[in-house]
Order: sequence, then structure tokens, then C-alpha cells
Amino acid sequence: MFQSASLPLDLSRTDFDALEPKLRTELLAAQREVIEKKPFSVLVVIAGVDGAGKNDAIARLHEWLDVRYVTCNAYDEETEEERGRPDLWRYWRDLPALGETSIVVSSWYNEPLRCFVQGEIGEAEFERRLARINRFEGLLASENVLVLKFWFSLTPETQKRRLKGLGRKDRARRILAEWADITHAPGAQAAFERAALATSTPAAPWIVIPSDDARARDLALGRCVEMAVRRRLEAAPSDPLALPAVVARIERRSAVEAVDLSSRLSKHRYRTELDRLQGELARLVDRKAFRDRSLVVAFEGNDAAGKGGAIRRVIRPLDPRRYRVHRIAAPTEEEHAHPWLWRFWNRLPRRGHSAIFDRSWYGRVLVERIEGFCSEAEWARAYNEINEFEAELTDAGAIVVKFWLAISRQEQLARFKEREETPYKQFKITDEDWRNRLKWDQYAEAAGDMVDRTSTSFAPWHLVAAEDKRFARVEVLRRLVEQLEAAL
Amino acid sequence: MFQSASLPLDLSRTDFDALEPKLRTELLAAQREVIEKKPFSVLVVIAGVDGAGKNDAIARLHEWLDVRYVTCNAYDEETEEERGRPDLWRYWRDLPALGETSIVVSSWYNEPLRCFVQGEIGEAEFERRLARINRFEGLLASENVLVLKFWFSLTPETQKRRLKGLGRKDRARRILAEWADITHAPGAQAAFERAALATSTPAAPWIVIPSDDARARDLALGRCVEMAVRRRLEAAPSDPLALPAVVARIERRSAVEAVDLSSRLSKHRYRTELDRLQGELARLVDRKAFRDRSLVVAFEGNDAAGKGGAIRRVIRPLDPRRYRVHRIAAPTEEEHAHPWLWRFWNRLPRRGHSAIFDRSWYGRVLVERIEGFCSEAEWARAYNEINEFEAELTDAGAIVVKFWLAISRQEQLARFKEREETPYKQFKITDEDWRNRLKWDQYAEAAGDMVDRTSTSFAPWHLVAAEDKRFARVEVLRRLVEQLEAAL
Repeated sequence: MFQSASLPLDLSRTDFDALEPKLRTELLAAQREVIEKKPFSVLVVIAGVDGAGKNDAIARLHEWLDVRYVTCNAYDEETEEERGRPDLWRYWRDLPALGETSIVVSSWYNEPLRCFVQGEIGEAEFERRLARINRFEGLLASENVLVLKFWFSLTPETQKRRLKGLGRKDRARRILAEWADITHAPGAQAAFERAALATSTPAAPWIVIPSDDARARDLALGRCVEMAVRRRLEAAPSDPLALPAVVARIERRSAVEAVDLSSRLSKHRYRTELDRLQGELARLVDRKAFRDRSLVVAFEGNDAAGKGGAIRRVIRPLDPRRYRVHRIAAPTEEEHAHPWLWRFWNRLPRRGHSAIFDRSWYGRVLVERIEGFCSEAEWARAYNEINEFEAELTDAGAIVVKFWLAISRQEQLARFKEREETPYKQFKITDEDWRNRLKWDQYAEAAGDMVDRTSTSFAPWHLVAAEDKRFARVEVLRRLVEQLEAAL
Repeated sequence: MFQSASLPLDLSRTDFDALEPKLRTELLAAQREVIEKKPFSVLVVIAGVDGAGKNDAIARLHEWLDVRYVTCNAYDEETEEERGRPDLWRYWRDLPALGETSIVVSSWYNEPLRCFVQGEIGEAEFERRLARINRFEGLLASENVLVLKFWFSLTPETQKRRLKGLGRKDRARRILAEWADITHAPGAQAAFERAALATSTPAAPWIVIPSDDARARDLALGRCVEMAVRRRLEAAPSDPLALPAVVARIERRSAVEAVDLSSRLSKHRYRTELDRLQGELARLVDRKAFRDRSLVVAFEGNDAAGKGGAIRRVIRPLDPRRYRVHRIAAPTEEEHAHPWLWRFWNRLPRRGHSAIFDRSWYGRVLVERIEGFCSEAEWARAYNEINEFEAELTDAGAIVVKFWLAISRQEQLARFKEREETPYKQFKITDEDWRNRLKWDQYAEAAGDMVDRTSTSFAPWHLVAAEDKRFARVEVLRRLVEQLEAAL
């Protein structure tokens, strides 16, 4: 998850100086409106890896906001006073009143995350605690508390560098050091991902703040708070919060647009690799271990990115009795009369079988989002619904492999033209394709959000450069074989 | 929970014949409107103890409804086809389309309940599975499926009798017999209570059908389906379902009105018992085991039922440094600016201490519900919020004891008059008391719902007859001492 959090970004001092005054003014205006009208209170939860500069960002928020209406609550080990009461007591006590803002550091997430990462509790207990947190936050949200949860993340390289720096400072501050040990421990990212999956509700979403660059970090945080408060001020109370992105960046950069498209493959290499990988694939699905599993492959990508060609190379080595290819178009009337995931549940393969989806349930957060075929509330909750769906599948033994085939605008244009000019390809190109092309940026943004929110450890997205068809086909097979091998 | 499900009820053949035609007409009219307008589909989940007549009730529903738009899906052991797919696949496949109704027997609850009752899974895993069910049902609810879940219950006596009867029939129908073993197993009621607590959401509530009497059972089921469909047809999509009661009875009978008020105590017995029990209480809170626990006592009841007098007898033996009495009135402005439970969280006692609440957080579902100080959506979700709150308390070592002091209408009148006539008691009676008295029936209904929904195994309600003050005071102390003793 949160792929785009790792994309590089550089914000110069000059950029920052240009952006900051506007943000400050708007942030303060939003806060003033909350103070005066008192429609809700604001609870900002700050979490994330140690060394990401959480304290600096909080100091910046204090600089930007009217501090008379802001309190910052940091929680250390429980005091004698607190130990005698339920776990959540100290957080309840410190809740902001209507119109006020409270910033919470080391919140109710710390203890469950620590216990899980350090192996003190198992998966079921971890999920039970997360469910309890969900109920707590759900109660707050229905009682007019705007709950915003930020996770400050670092790329692995920066993380390493910062941790070294930390080591030089006073490591006697036990709690901080311990939290560093936890957030940098193996499995910490997976644990947070799990927590974010379970507790990113429309009522209280998690937002990732890429924190490699301090200035970009603070701007993203401030802008995100401002936008959330503004949206909530203008929305009806029952509207979902529906923040645009799960990763807050000052410049939106979509993970699918960051794919390096330069990879190429010679005809000769292509032949050899294709043969080898198709053989591998045939052997894998023939293994005894696969009889208790199933394979679900989803293909998405830009129009004309070569999904069909890639699918043909994948199915060639498979036994036709044991796979089905499903081309997903607009739902039929009957399908429309059911919950939207129903048509995909009905196409699931049984054990030992495979299903290949040419376009998939991701249409909900791509075409349906962009064309307005469903409401914002509907696609905003679809990310969670999809993650749940894929969790059900993998829990039942399915191996879920997802491909995004990426091409450039220019390459798409060339392929469209070629299709129009080649008689036997003309059926492949319609007016709709041309219309979609005009919405290229919207699709890129939606695809980026999709990858950020639904690339999980149990069902990862594979972003494949498809500018060169040969490279794409071999790459798809290679990744499929790898994921299958790891799973079996 | 569900106390009023055990109250006796007799519906004669004549009563049934009088009520049935009207219900049939209205039920069919509601179904027809759903069929024609197709605003949602209806999913009726039938569960409950074996021998309660689930099949007979389903047959009756088929008799009353337009069966062309009703399917009944019963699930046995998974077939070869089903085993290869995720657990929820078979339920997804059979979902009703818009306008249609599906009745589900042995649903997605069976397996988790069975595993938990038979000890195959622990508490954390059980809660994890319930959380998953919640997400599934939440998805259905947001996709226009009206989910109604009925639990058919029997009083212990009838249960025993029916089970014997079952034994005589063909017990070779393995599944049925096994389910009987499960629902009649020790711990089954507690397991269902737990499941109902975790999965009774406003989107998909559990409704208990008392099933001792077959005719009353069918009428209650039919009426409940009719009401839910009718409300949903008339409500905005975002309105909560807010069914009036968690126990569906043809004649509403409130658990608090069923308290036997005839108990009396002589002056002499009163003195001896009071002394003995106050001594017991003093010893209990002085025990070493209490140092790690705390005591939270809530008093509710009819006006003039004698809460103050009972509280004075409870606190007499306690060390004044270690208890606080909180009289709960309307929230202050500051309290009003916080989530409604905030003021109670702030009054929690720490370890080794006690807090006595003269009126409590239950005001939310009593006076606030009746006087309209909060919306229907707010009090409808308050039951769950209260159960969660009390679960937090007990998990943290608090012992939560709740008393409802019940008097009759006549006795209240006599006490009101006495208060008006006794100069030093006049402050105790206000115009508001007289106004509340006019709403006696509404309070009785609200109190009944409250007991049905919030009397849990970890924080049970004690319904105490308070017609005789001496009896009430001794009974309060006796139950308090008993619950403390059991807990320590």
C-alpha cells in the first residue's frame, strides 16, 4: 500500500516560500470558522516511523493555527492515575470540545502495534483490538469529532540514514527509542498496513505523509488538515469525508505514471524467455500444491496497453478445462440489481482452477469513479470493500495477482492510429476510447489512488511497463510465475 | 440480554384469527411495493435454538408472501463446489436481486457459533470472525439490501420439553441434531449474546422472537418484517433502520413492568439484614482483591422509587475517601460540547475506589429518547455504545452493577402526594415529575428496551421491586454483595 509515498519529490525553499502563505491563510480561515460556528471538534492523530519529524511537523501546525484553541496531548507510559482505569480513559478525558482542535501523539494505536510487532499478541487479538479502536472512532465520528489520522512515512533509504542520526542523540529517552525499535523492526510496515486496512474507515481515514522532505511534509499535512476541515464545514453531516488521496503530497504524483517505460526486449530474448516462463507456469499449476489453491489474475491498464495480448500469452500453457477468461464490461441489468461485487463473486474459480479477468472489479474505482457511474460515497468505500474481498479470496487459498499495464500518452496515440488503419483491428477502437483519452490525467490519478489503497501484502499490484509489448508480456509472465512460486 | 423474551405470553386461537388477516394484508402490500419499485432487496436471516419452530415460521412466511419473489436458501455442509471457494461465496451467489426476498436458514453465523461453543476457536478468533461478518453485512446494507436477522428463542422450560420431543424423532438427520447439540449446549446463550452484541448494527439488527407459543411467534415475525420493510420504504436511504424493539412481541410487555411488586420486609428483618449486608459490603471492598478492581453502581428507576434512600444505605459502610456519589442531571454546556459519554468517562473511579451514579448514562435511552433531546438515530446507536462502554470498564477490572427500582403507578402517586404535603420533602417534587408521570407508558417501554439490550453477562441489570422501601434497600445491598462476591 501507499506506493506513491515512496516516489521522490523535491520541493525547493523557494517553492515552499511561495506555497506557505496561501496555505496558512486558508488553514487559519478554516480553523476560525470551526471556532466560531462550533459544528465539530478536530482530532489530529500523529503517528509514523521514528525519525520522520513528527515533532517538527506538530511545531509547524502550532505556528500556523490559532493556538488558543489547540491542545497537544502526548501519551507516555500510563501514570498511576491512568493505570487504574480503562485503557481509553486518558484519551476520553482529553477529547477536544466543539470548536477546538486536539493533536494526539502516541495514540491508542501505539500499544496494539507494539504488542503485535514484538509478538506479544497474535493476529486474532490484534484484529480484536483494532475492531475496538474502530468502534471508539466510529463513536467519536458520530458525535461530531472530525478524526484525522496521519502516518509519517520514510523511504527505506532515508529511514536508515535517520536512524543512524538518532543513534547519536540521547537514546536514553527510553520510550522514544523503543518506539524507534518498533517502527523500524521487521514486520512494522506490514503491521501498520494491516492496521490501516482495518481502521481506514470513511469516518476516520488514515492519510500517509511522505516525510523524506521536511518542507513537503509540513505543507502536505497542513493542506490535508485544511481540506478535511473545509470539506466537513461544507458537507452535510451524513456525507463521507472522502479525502481525495490516501497519500498526501503537495504535488500529486501517481504511482502508475512513475513507471519507467524505457525497458525493451529483443525478439530473440523474447522467444527464449516466453518459452521458458510458459513452461514454468504450466509446471506450477500442475503441482499437487495447486490442487488446494486457485488463481485469480486481474488485468487493468491504459486503453491499448496490450492486456489482450498479455492474457493470450498467459493462458497458452494452461489446460482449457481449468481456466476461464472473463471480459468485464458494463454490468447487465440483473447484475445491476445486486450488490456491485456480486458479479465477481459469481465468477470465482474453484480449487485447482484459474480465472483471468480482462478488466475487473477495479472498474469501480476507475471508470465508474471518473464517469460518475457511482457516487463519491460509493467509490470512496469501494477501496475497503475490494481489500476485504481480496482478503476473503486469499484466506480461502486463492492466489490473487494484479497487473497494471502502463504506456505513455504518445504510444497510446500511435496504437490508436494503427488500429484505425488496420482493417482487422478496427473493431478494437471506438469513439469511447478517444473520449477516455481526453481524461488521461483523471485516469492516472484514479489509478494512482487505486494502487496506493489496494496494493496489499496479500494481493500486491504489479506495475508493468508496456511501452514495448514484448517486454510487457515476458514481465507479466515472470511476475506471475514468481508470485505463484512464492505462494505454493 | 433480551429479558422480555422470557416473559409469559398467551395468544389464543381467537386472538390469532383476529390479528392475522390485517397483518397478511399489510405484509403483502409492503412486499408488492418492494417488488414494483425495486428500491432494495430483503434478506431475512433465520437463526435460533433448535426446536423453536424455525421451519414452521418459514412455511408461514411463504403462505403470507407472494412466493414468486421469495427464495429460501438453506445451507448444509459445504458441497464439493463450495469447498473450493471462499466461505462467503455461497451466500454471495444466492443474494436476492432488487425487489426480491431471500430467507436464509443456517447462515454465515452457524459456523463461527459452532466453533466457539465447541471450543474449536478462542474469543479473539470468534470476535475476528464476527468483525468479518459485520463488514459483509455493512457492505450489503450500503448496497440496498435490507438485512433482518431473527433469533428464535425458547424459555429454558420449553427448551427442555422440546428437546425431549426432538429426541424421539429421527435424530439421524445429523446436521439438525448437531445444531441442537450446539444451541442447547452450556454457553450457547452466552455465545449468541456475544455475537448479537458485536453484530447488532443499525444497518443489520438482531431481533429476538420469543417462540414458546407458535402463533405468537409467527405473528411477531411477520409484523416485524412488515414494519421493517415499511419503515425502509418510507425512510431516506441514510436513515437508520431503528426498529422499535430488540425483542419482537405481538403485545409489548416490558421487563420492568413484569417485576413482582408484592415483596415486603418486616421492620425487624430489615434491621438485621441491613446490618449484616452492610458489614458484608464493608468487608468485601476492604479485601485485597478489591485493590485492583473498582466498583461502578448505577441507579435508575421510576421517579420516587427510592433511589436516594437506597444509595444512602449502600454508602454508609464505605470509606468516604474511596467513593463518590454522582447525581446526573442535564449536561452542562461544556459537557454538551463533547461526545455524550465523555462526562461519564470523566467520573470513573480508579482502582480500589467506587462511584455511585444516581441516574446515569442510561438517561440517553430514557429521558433523552422520550423527550426528544437526542434524535432517533442517536438513541438507537446508544445501546451499542453503552455496551461497549461497560465492556471497556469490566475489561479494565471494574465491577459494574446496575439497578432498576420499580414501583407501581399507584405507589408513585401516593409518594408524590406525600412529598407535596411534607414540608421537608417538598423540594423533591416538581412540575416536571408530574409531567413525566403522564408519560408512564413511554418510560416503561423505553426501560424495557434498555433492559433487553443492555443486560449483558458482564454488566447485568438487577430489577428490584421497590414498592416496599425496606425490601428494596435490603435487596439492593444483597444483590450488590452477591455480584461483588462473585467478581472478587
